[in-house]
Amino acid sequence: MAKPYRPKLTNAARPATFEVEAVNERGEMVPTSIAGEHPLTLYLDKRELVTLMTLGHAPEALAVGFLRNQRLVAGIEDIEAVQVDWETDSVAVTTNRVFKGVEEKLQKKTVTTGCGQGTVYGDLMEEIDSIKLRDDVKLADTDLFVLLEKVRKHETIYKQSGAVHGCALATLDGEILMFVEDVGRHNAVDAIAGFMWLDAIDGSDKLFYTTGRLTSEMVTKCAQMRIPFLVSRSGLTKMGHDIAGQVGLTMLGRASGRHYLAFTGKHRLQRTATQPTAIA
Amino acid sequence: MAKPYRPKLTNAARPATFEVEAVNERGEMVPTSIAGEHPLTLYLDKRELVTLMTLGHAPEALAVGFLRNQRLVAGIEDIEAVQVDWETDSVAVTTNRVFKGVEEKLQKKTVTTGCGQGTVYGDLMEEIDSIKLRDDVKLADTDLFVLLEKVRKHETIYKQSGAVHGCALATLDGEILMFVEDVGRHNAVDAIAGFMWLDAIDGSDKLFYTTGRLTSEMVTKCAQMRIPFLVSRSGLTKMGHDIAGQVGLTMLGRASGRHYLAFTGKHRLQRTATQPTAIA
Repeated sequence: MAKPYRPKLTNAARPATFEVEAVNERGEMVPTSIAGEHPLTLYLDKRELVTLMTLGHAPEALAVGFLRNQRLVAGIEDIEAVQVDWETDSVAVTTNRVFKGVEEKLQKKTVTTGCGQGTVYGDLMEEIDSIKLRDDVKLADTDLFVLLEKVRKHETIYKQSGAVHGCALATLDGEILMFVEDVGRHNAVDAIAGFMWLDAIDGSDKLFYTTGRLTSEMVTKCAQMRIPFLVSRSGLTKMGHDIAGQVGLTMLGRASGRHYLAFTGKHRLQRTATQPTAIA
Repeated sequence: MAKPYRPKLTNAARPATFEVEAVNERGEMVPTSIAGEHPLTLYLDKRELVTLMTLGHAPEALAVGFLRNQRLVAGIEDIEAVQVDWETDSVAVTTNRVFKGVEEKLQKKTVTTGCGQGTVYGDLMEEIDSIKLRDDVKLADTDLFVLLEKVRKHETIYKQSGAVHGCALATLDGEILMFVEDVGRHNAVDAIAGFMWLDAIDGSDKLFYTTGRLTSEMVTKCAQMRIPFLVSRSGLTKMGHDIAGQVGLTMLGRASGRHYLAFTGKHRLQRTATQPTAIA
C-alpha cells in the first residue's frame, strides 16, 4: 500500500490541564485541575477565516478537519502545509491550488450549529440529501460494550477537569483508533475528521463515539464522513433524530456500561449479549 | 416607576420536547423524550445575519439577547419589533435607527466561542478591559444553597431529554428571576440577556447560574451584563479562569447541593453555613 500523502505539519500540542487554587464550601484550599483553552486563529492561504477556542491538544488535525467539514478544501492532497504558531495563536494552512467557490462560500455568512451558535460556511444541509451510508456493516452489542468500557477508561484522563468533550473513532469490533478531547465537541469531531484525512482512514466501516449531545450538526458531520454508526452517552435532539433517520444512520444514545437506546438505523445492530437475534 | 419600553413582540414558543420510540439493550421498545431543535434565521432590518439552532422556547428573547451580546444594537429602545415566524423558521428584528459600525462589525468574520465554534462579530474581548463589576454586593453561602436547590427542581422539567443546557438569573438571596433552557448554552445565556433588556433588569446585583462549562465566552458574556456572580455545576477552562480573574468576577464551579469550589473573586462570598466568617 502506498504511504498516504501528508502535508508538512508542525506538532504543537499544548498541555491539556492546568492547576489552580480553589476554596471549597468549608473554606479549605483545594488544588484543582482545569482544562486549557486557547484562541487559535486559522488562516487559509493568508486569509483570516476563523478563531477557534481549543484545548490545543491536536491543533494541526483540528485545522485540517475544520477545513474538511466546512468543505473549504476538497482533499488532503490539496493541503501543502499546516503550521501552528502559539506565539501568535495562529495556524497557517497553505494549499496548492485555487478552490472554486471558496470566495462564494465565505461570502455567505450563515452560521449554524448544533451547540446553538457555530460556523458553517455554505449549505451543508443540502449535501445530506445525496449521502448514502453503507448497509453491509453490522455492530454486535458485545463489541459495543467492549468499546464503551475502553472509552470510560480513556475519559478518566481529563475527567478531573470537567470542562472537555471527548470523541473517538472506533472499529466495529470495539477498538479505539483515535480519541480526541477539546473544550467544544465540534472541535473534537473536527480534529477526528482531520486525523482521518491525515492517516487516510475510511469512515464507512467505523463507529463514531461522542460524549456530547446528538444535535443536527453532530449527526450531519458524522454522515458527511460516511460513518454509519454514531454513539453517545448523552441524549439527542429532534433535528438530530430527523437527520439520522433521513440518512439511515445507526444512532445510539444514553450508551454507558451495558446500556443504550437505539433511535435510528436499528437494522445494523446485532443483539447477541442475551440471545443471538438481530434487533428490529 | 415608568413602565419599561417594550418592542412589538410575537410570542411564538415551540414545544420543548417530543416523544420518539427507541429500542434498549434488551430489545424492548422505550418511548423517549427528546429535546426540540429548530433552525431560526435572524434578520436584522431585512439583512440575514445568522441561523441559530434552538429549542425554540424563548425565540424573541433569544434574538434580542443575541443582538445585545454581539453588540449589534445599543439598547432595547433601538428595537422596534421582533417577529418570529416558524412557517419560515425566521425572526425579523426591525430597528428604528441606523447603527454606526454594524457594517464594519459584520465584515469582520472572526468567529469565536467557548464551545469551540461560535459567533462573535467584532472584538468583544477588547471590551473586557473596561469592565468594572460592583464590589459592594455579597453572597452568603446559605443563600447559594437555597438557589442550588431551586435550580435542581427547575431542571427536572427537561432533565429527561438529556440534551439541553439551562441558565438562570437569580437574586443574591437565592430567588430565580428567570430560567431558560436551550440546546446550546450560548443560546440560553443570550435569551437571559434578552429577557433582562425586555424587563429592564439590572445585572449588577444578580447571580448568573449555568449548567454549562465556564469557558471564555460564558465569562465574557456574564461580565458584559455586569453580573458579578457566575455559578456552574460544571468545570471551567483556563481562559475562563483568567478572564474572571481579570474582571474580578466571583466564579464558582462544581456547585451542587451544599458544595462548591470558588475560583476567583472570593471577597464577595460570605461563608455563614458553618461559621459566620468571610472567606479569603
